[in-house]
Amino acid sequence: LPRKRKSSKRSSNHSSADLPLAPVERLIKKSGAERVSESAARELALVLQERAAVISAKAVKLAKHAGRVTVTEEDIKMAR
Amino acid sequence: LPRKRKSSKRSSNHSSADLPLAPVERLIKKSGAERVSESAARELALVLQERAAVISAKAVKLAKHAGRVTVTEEDIKMAR
Repeated sequence: LPRKRKSSKRSSNHSSADLPLAPVERLIKKSGAERVSESAARELALVLQERAAVISAKAVKLAKHAGRVTVTEEDIKMAR
Repeated sequence: LPRKRKSSKRSSNHSSADLPLAPVERLIKKSGAERVSESAARELALVLQERAAVISAKAVKLAKHAGRVTVTEEDIKMAR
């Protein structure tokens, strides 16, 4: 019988605008973690995506307010 | 004369534990941005990495406190 792909859960977690889990896992290890569960990386990715959405929505408004269609570094800095 | 690689700035921004810029740019676009400057994506990546570092450091402490070497989803949830 064909075995289920081990990556199926991970893949199904990925929409078109998700953060990839490997760099998020590396960030946790950079802070001193010896091992990181996959669900831990997924949870942190969700937290970061929520924060990104809040900042980005504000930055888009700031860009429009300034008459631009391009979101710039300054918009992000003002929105954070 | 050989031309400078356009990606040099982007590459030099990448340490071993950085978030890749393309997914961060997609997150900004998901919030309604028509265009996103490269420096905007880089700035948001920095903001997210700072937040990841704060949460991860706390999660590592929580895991150790619980006698584990693996950082789990629960550690991240408690640390956020």
